[in-house]
Amino acid sequence: MLLKAAESVTLEPVQAGIGIRWLIKDDAPNFAMRVIEIEPGVVFSPHHHPYEHEIYVLEGSGIVTNSEGDVEDMYPGVFLYVPPDEVHGYRNTGDVTLKFICVIPQ
Amino acid sequence: MLLKAAESVTLEPVQAGIGIRWLIKDDAPNFAMRVIEIEPGVVFSPHHHPYEHEIYVLEGSGIVTNSEGDVEDMYPGVFLYVPPDEVHGYRNTGDVTLKFICVIPQ
Repeated sequence: MLLKAAESVTLEPVQAGIGIRWLIKDDAPNFAMRVIEIEPGVVFSPHHHPYEHEIYVLEGSGIVTNSEGDVEDMYPGVFLYVPPDEVHGYRNTGDVTLKFICVIPQ
Repeated sequence: MLLKAAESVTLEPVQAGIGIRWLIKDDAPNFAMRVIEIEPGVVFSPHHHPYEHEIYVLEGSGIVTNSEGDVEDMYPGVFLYVPPDEVHGYRNTGDVTLKFICVIPQ
């Protein structure tokens, strides 16, 4: 059994103002658990890939976007399912870091 | 894309003082996201099964246990990887509901 504090895992840069912590990856046979952190005002541009996301918002506030613009509000306690190949992006609209769990297959 | 508040999903009883919300299940091809909620003082007895858990603690405090007793503290921001077939249980040692995300393969 592995137990750790998420904050103890290195925040790796994705792009300016966006980082990722790979909480569970190498030990796991089927899916990986990460935390994505987006600074205030920063946009994670809409993109797509052939695998799904299962997301749970931990802190902060923002918007999930698709190729046409804003879609719905993200705030703590909200979960999202993004199917494979669906366009999605994020925008932090608050004044603190937007943090969410994002699980992907592996 | 599916986006909802976790609190809007029905809390289904598991046993007295323990409930589960199935956040993402039927839409998802590879793994399911649930929230487990354990009331203060309640024990989820040690058990095992042939699939892994990926866990992230949201609220409350408790202990993760194995067949020999207490193992480590659970508190918000802690994540756990429980490998397939490993014995694990939980005990809420605080005075509020212990809530954690628990992802399983499907």
